[in-house]
Amino acid sequence: MENNNISILGAGLIGSLLGIFLRKRGLDVSIFEKREDRRHQLYKEEGRSINMALSDRGWKALEKVGLKDKIKDLAIPMYGRRIHDEHGNTTFQQYGKDGEAIYSISRGKFNQILVDEAEKVGVQLNFEHKCEDVNIYKKQIKFSLPKWEAKKHQANVIIGADGAYSALRSSMQKQERFDFSQHYISHGYKELSIPPTAEGEFAMDPNALHIWPRGKFMLIALPNPDKSFTCTLFLPFEGTKVCFDKIHDKKDVESVFKTYFNDAYNMMPTLGEDFFKNPTSALITINCYPWVKNQCLLIGDASHAMVPFYGQGMNCGFEDCYVLDGLIEKYGTTSWELIFEKFQKMRKPDTDAISQLALENFIEMRDAVSDPKFLIRKKIEARLHELYPKEWIPLYTMVTFSDIPYSEAYAQGKIQDRIMNKVMADPLITQNWDKLDYEDIIDQVETARMV
Amino acid sequence: MENNNISILGAGLIGSLLGIFLRKRGLDVSIFEKREDRRHQLYKEEGRSINMALSDRGWKALEKVGLKDKIKDLAIPMYGRRIHDEHGNTTFQQYGKDGEAIYSISRGKFNQILVDEAEKVGVQLNFEHKCEDVNIYKKQIKFSLPKWEAKKHQANVIIGADGAYSALRSSMQKQERFDFSQHYISHGYKELSIPPTAEGEFAMDPNALHIWPRGKFMLIALPNPDKSFTCTLFLPFEGTKVCFDKIHDKKDVESVFKTYFNDAYNMMPTLGEDFFKNPTSALITINCYPWVKNQCLLIGDASHAMVPFYGQGMNCGFEDCYVLDGLIEKYGTTSWELIFEKFQKMRKPDTDAISQLALENFIEMRDAVSDPKFLIRKKIEARLHELYPKEWIPLYTMVTFSDIPYSEAYAQGKIQDRIMNKVMADPLITQNWDKLDYEDIIDQVETARMV
Repeated sequence: MENNNISILGAGLIGSLLGIFLRKRGLDVSIFEKREDRRHQLYKEEGRSINMALSDRGWKALEKVGLKDKIKDLAIPMYGRRIHDEHGNTTFQQYGKDGEAIYSISRGKFNQILVDEAEKVGVQLNFEHKCEDVNIYKKQIKFSLPKWEAKKHQANVIIGADGAYSALRSSMQKQERFDFSQHYISHGYKELSIPPTAEGEFAMDPNALHIWPRGKFMLIALPNPDKSFTCTLFLPFEGTKVCFDKIHDKKDVESVFKTYFNDAYNMMPTLGEDFFKNPTSALITINCYPWVKNQCLLIGDASHAMVPFYGQGMNCGFEDCYVLDGLIEKYGTTSWELIFEKFQKMRKPDTDAISQLALENFIEMRDAVSDPKFLIRKKIEARLHELYPKEWIPLYTMVTFSDIPYSEAYAQGKIQDRIMNKVMADPLITQNWDKLDYEDIIDQVETARMV
Repeated sequence: MENNNISILGAGLIGSLLGIFLRKRGLDVSIFEKREDRRHQLYKEEGRSINMALSDRGWKALEKVGLKDKIKDLAIPMYGRRIHDEHGNTTFQQYGKDGEAIYSISRGKFNQILVDEAEKVGVQLNFEHKCEDVNIYKKQIKFSLPKWEAKKHQANVIIGADGAYSALRSSMQKQERFDFSQHYISHGYKELSIPPTAEGEFAMDPNALHIWPRGKFMLIALPNPDKSFTCTLFLPFEGTKVCFDKIHDKKDVESVFKTYFNDAYNMMPTLGEDFFKNPTSALITINCYPWVKNQCLLIGDASHAMVPFYGQGMNCGFEDCYVLDGLIEKYGTTSWELIFEKFQKMRKPDTDAISQLALENFIEMRDAVSDPKFLIRKKIEARLHELYPKEWIPLYTMVTFSDIPYSEAYAQGKIQDRIMNKVMADPLITQNWDKLDYEDIIDQVETARMV
């Protein structure tokens, strides 16, 4: 049963969850992770990871391996966006129906639980194994270990869950006919923090994702269980009035924050230090195909890293695991070729769609959400959804609160977009929005779908 | 004068021509080439290189270094396409005005002359130096040499002219914020041959590029000085009725050729052997940016490999050298940062344009050229060019017989396309084409340009 020996690269969120799924199917699973095992150290954020927002697709996968309840304790529901304007006024935009939420969770603790669970169910963990190269044909993995040691591992099935800078993908890239692209957006990000108040309370409403949209840039904040918020500042690297290249010292930081994020500034006592201590990171989009070669498979960010603006990177990776597990459930493990082939064919259009939506949503987050007409538009869409719950599901709801394939959500969203652009073109829409002919709008959807 | 020490990776067509340009500017130039020095061996084709078609941009660069006349002796002018239909009937489509031609030349001999010339003007040649890695920050190059030897080279300025699978680019790809894509088309190619006749003559008209367009696939042939033709067969790899995957033995090859290329088949006595001796190669498009990092520059295919269907890959690479030399002429060599920055900013839109045109031209070559309406269209465009030589220059002419920036040619071509599509929509165009209101067409161009 050589074929039931699985080597996973990466003990991150996707790699460890996948390990659990596969082990539960009775397979022998080894995970190789380049970092050291940090589980038994004091829990500490890495300084450069964006807080995660767990939503329905992620929960669905966690539920299938029985981890939903355990994780729920760590997660803080965010029922909507709280928009901060330049004067410190805020407005709340609910994400979905009452009770629907995305859940703020910190990567470190979450990852620790998944790794612990993987170990518990019998996954072999190998830390401090840095993959240097994979010979795809021989399925041999070269690892470098601490103290200049090296190790060759003969694998049978290799799954690369090793992230946006995947080593397995680098090896696949050298194969003929491997399509690949890496693209950086013009913005970078930096993590900052809002500590609890002197009274030990959350400094803002904890049940919202806070956004300070400023057109070309923005600040966001997500709540943590310790009553702090993790903030992420997204700025262009260079070339605009406000950009990372033009911030040289604490005075510059303060000036930007006082001007654009004054209410946040007043909650950030260590802003100046944090800004120069934490790295400025870039945001990459990865596209590649095929994901499979000779029983080597790419999964999660390794095959489709996306920008974080739809909060779906991790959720999509978890759905990858769920879908792959479903294929194993259906076809067994006698032919990995069959399963991997079906997996990539089925999954690629969906990951392309969410990757594109993530890029598009950046503009919505940093700009559109502060437009009063955007609010009207959301209200109209919510009303449509209320009146015609199946015929009109807002795009955000399809992506976040359903498991409709991303590609279908994408196509549907484009139809809705065209129709709503026409609706919003009415100059009196601000007054008239609740007197619209909603039935006619739904008819337009039906017609568009048939074309 | 450390700064005047240039290390070029690759002694191919672009690397050696660039070496000549830079040496002539008084710089110290070393070229490192992974292959052995084959100049003193019997001249032999490599089996997988498509014959080159030299056109105006290429000649312009060769002229600037004084090599035009020397090369002209090796090159065979092709004044147009000769289209072969399935019954062996041919038609001739002139490329430009009388006397305008592209020139068939074999890569091997051409490369040899450029390397000889580089050596003559004082370029240091280092063969059998395979670049394994470049440390971009330290500008150190690691080479592997024959017999497992290795060598570290400290460079000052590094230029990667090392082709579509560039080692310098691989090192740059690991840098943050390096945009990169490699994309393969669904077709591959195989080189074949038509020898001279028993009488020692060309088997077909030597002053044409022969095309057997068959919709989803095609065969082409270019003349050689030894009176043979080098043929290239372009087929989908898989999934269609006629594709590489479905050709298993000589019988299959013969059946395809007898059915689709019967006149060529009768001129190819070694077809069966050639087909299985020669490799099937893939066709890659490379896009990346920036091309420059810390005085390391990518040039030619290393920065913008394109499919061969516009015959511009080499010409574009030569124009790269011409443009770079022009910048050195203008700004001197005190700041390579300045020159390289200006080079990439100026050149990127043009190489993007020709790369896109090359993809689009595949459809024209394998399909459109056999459509009678395509011929009418070309006639109308030729007439327009005759009547309004400045206002209407056919796209092929702009690309091939001028040095209009590729990006301008591209934009102009799109305008022409829209106008010609309208013109061709007339169901009676076949009868009416020479009674058109040509002035009105030109007016449409003017209007479109202003928008």
